[in-house]
Amino acid sequence: MTAGINEFMSNSTSVPEPSEVLLQRAGDVKRSAIDLAQTSDSQRKRALFSMADSLENHSEDILLANSHDLKEASTSGLAQALLSRLKLDQEKLAMAIKGVKQVAELSDPIGLRQMYKELDEGLFLERITVPLGVIGVIFESRPDAVMQIASLAIRSGNAAILKGGSEANKTNMAIINALEEGLSNSGFPKSSLCLLTTRAESLALLKLEKYVDLIIPRGSNELVRFIQDNTRIPVLGHADGICHLYIDSQADLEMALAIVIDSKCQYPAACNAIETLLLHESIASKFLMNAIQPLETIGVDLLGDEVCQQLGVKGIAKDEDWSTEYLDLSLSLKVVSDIDEALDHIRQYGSRHTDGIVTEDSSIANRFLSSIDSSGVYHNCSTRFADGFRYGFGAEVGISTQTLPPRGPVGLEGLVTYRYFLRGNGHIAADYVSGKRVFSHKSLKP
Amino acid sequence: MTAGINEFMSNSTSVPEPSEVLLQRAGDVKRSAIDLAQTSDSQRKRALFSMADSLENHSEDILLANSHDLKEASTSGLAQALLSRLKLDQEKLAMAIKGVKQVAELSDPIGLRQMYKELDEGLFLERITVPLGVIGVIFESRPDAVMQIASLAIRSGNAAILKGGSEANKTNMAIINALEEGLSNSGFPKSSLCLLTTRAESLALLKLEKYVDLIIPRGSNELVRFIQDNTRIPVLGHADGICHLYIDSQADLEMALAIVIDSKCQYPAACNAIETLLLHESIASKFLMNAIQPLETIGVDLLGDEVCQQLGVKGIAKDEDWSTEYLDLSLSLKVVSDIDEALDHIRQYGSRHTDGIVTEDSSIANRFLSSIDSSGVYHNCSTRFADGFRYGFGAEVGISTQTLPPRGPVGLEGLVTYRYFLRGNGHIAADYVSGKRVFSHKSLKP
Repeated sequence: MTAGINEFMSNSTSVPEPSEVLLQRAGDVKRSAIDLAQTSDSQRKRALFSMADSLENHSEDILLANSHDLKEASTSGLAQALLSRLKLDQEKLAMAIKGVKQVAELSDPIGLRQMYKELDEGLFLERITVPLGVIGVIFESRPDAVMQIASLAIRSGNAAILKGGSEANKTNMAIINALEEGLSNSGFPKSSLCLLTTRAESLALLKLEKYVDLIIPRGSNELVRFIQDNTRIPVLGHADGICHLYIDSQADLEMALAIVIDSKCQYPAACNAIETLLLHESIASKFLMNAIQPLETIGVDLLGDEVCQQLGVKGIAKDEDWSTEYLDLSLSLKVVSDIDEALDHIRQYGSRHTDGIVTEDSSIANRFLSSIDSSGVYHNCSTRFADGFRYGFGAEVGISTQTLPPRGPVGLEGLVTYRYFLRGNGHIAADYVSGKRVFSHKSLKP
Repeated sequence: MTAGINEFMSNSTSVPEPSEVLLQRAGDVKRSAIDLAQTSDSQRKRALFSMADSLENHSEDILLANSHDLKEASTSGLAQALLSRLKLDQEKLAMAIKGVKQVAELSDPIGLRQMYKELDEGLFLERITVPLGVIGVIFESRPDAVMQIASLAIRSGNAAILKGGSEANKTNMAIINALEEGLSNSGFPKSSLCLLTTRAESLALLKLEKYVDLIIPRGSNELVRFIQDNTRIPVLGHADGICHLYIDSQADLEMALAIVIDSKCQYPAACNAIETLLLHESIASKFLMNAIQPLETIGVDLLGDEVCQQLGVKGIAKDEDWSTEYLDLSLSLKVVSDIDEALDHIRQYGSRHTDGIVTEDSSIANRFLSSIDSSGVYHNCSTRFADGFRYGFGAEVGISTQTLPPRGPVGLEGLVTYRYFLRGNGHIAADYVSGKRVFSHKSLKP
């Protein structure tokens, strides 16, 4: 567990009620959201460039604040990995500022007409994308997240309430001050962004369902699960990422090995890395003969079921391995007698993130892809492609494993919703009930 | 409160854990959902016609079962209004069967390609609509709901677990038996539909988050609120429908009166009927002079703020009136000094269902429509148009007042989600990280 989660979850059997001060601040953010929703594409673009300029102008303050945070954190004995995530140097800051400008250049997700109909003469129905309102974001150490999230929120016309790890408080505050100045300079309300700094406030954020329309947790599985369990506000994200790859009897085994290595090793801490490899019994022996050594050379800890052990896998997969997200170079392996056993296994243990099959048989592939209800189903490619940037969305606000949309890697569209606009000229329903008038329901070009 | 809610909520401070039997049944339904998801459009259409045929063949059994339910209900003293909702006669049944056939004719909501991209040579990403899986439906007395919901679920490739009011148990059971026979006759698994009959089972349904992907409550505000508060499964629907109409200073007052009468009186028990009328101070006196008498003649109980009382409104609007859904011929009235006061009032008391403005000033209208974050925002027409059939969706699974899509009146699209399909030819992420390959992200025609 990182500092962020510990802070968030320890001793917190109950989530406190929001204080008067927090309700006041949340109310201010909500009012700003109303103004933001009426800004134009070019105004929001300009605001982002102004935010980027202001971050540049305040680079020194931000880096200084970060050095204070770092000093305190290292004195208090924060682990090295966390210190390195907390650290913001010139280069990382420049990258983050560049990120803000890139978000500015993304195409506007709001104001899109998804539906346009003439219900009857003079009665026009439109469905148009609009901002969600207020986004609540809870993230752990990385201070670069503040800049990224703030820019995604403003780009899509949303206000945001942010809570970072307290070990980054000074840095986050300096960043928020700069962002607020940028907003002000472009005529946007400062209270479009609000940074929470105390633990009580951030817990109470989970109860602000009247003010916050979506919560995006950025952090560990434990953090996400805690948030999902303690709020009635919709949560965009996922706890576990237990991804599978199934090597079918008709697989090209050389391709299969390359995909396994990529899916497991290219970045094992990612949610879209595989945790379990399922092998069809007819190719298990041949595949493992060629796979064990290269995987072990990379440092993968192989944990097999009984059959795999007989085929040379040294580690033992215990029951809990099938539902463990290692986030590390460990891989559980199981031999299955057919695709049905593979499908059953994935249904039982998967987290509906991303699951793939390697096979040259397209009908088997199609059966797999249409039977697994994960947000991503892959054929003959690495699970590591499950990512908003790789999908070409230009940004990623999170990866959702829930059933309802938005799911999978979510770009800016996760921060918008829609509204029905109906414009008439005195139209009343009674005329249609009586039969005096009849709906035409004519679709017009959106 | 109706029998249905009482049954559901009384003495139920805690929701029981699902029994082994219920888990078994839910597991069967879930497995059927996997099969259903792989059926074709024409197979599902055929299944619906077969269900309709079977209902016709079993009409006598169904009507007999209903007469038994009615006898029992009237002996046990069920209120007259509930008895008439419970009663299923030849004509009502024929209408419901016709409804099943109409749903069959709706265009297929699944298998639609929403996105199609070549990420790189040979690496194709598709986003395709798929069924949600298992729908849980909880409804009150009306037995016709079983037929409507079952047909919507099967049409969209979903399985369903249904729970009706226990006073309709015999009728619902007879209907389900007929529907299951129809499913069987067309080669669909019987366990695509499952009827729960005991109170303990239906409460435990709220805890089946591993089996049920969406809950649709059909009933009173209290029922919906109870369900929303007691499940982690997404709920499609709304509790309150507190809709407003604002008559602006630039309104055509004759048009305004016609819209008020329609919005309030055409069917006052509907969720899209208005509860509160906001009047700009400059037209309040003139409007009320012409409106009070016709509204009173229809039987509307007018409850005004102080200014309205001075202008001739006899009833007194108390604080709680602004947040009351009357579901009846009552209307609260308030005079506001400008559009901002109207917007503030709606934001404070509205339920984000449907709110309208009457004005000849299009810039004021646009300001209203872009500032109110309700799922429907209307200009110069009755709020009673907020309805899936009136919008031309052909069916309505519910009206959602939440922020995230689907919201507003929801047609079959509320019963589908999507999945990302990625097909490659051995593509691995490492090649893109190293720069050996570069994404093209080429959009193809969906």
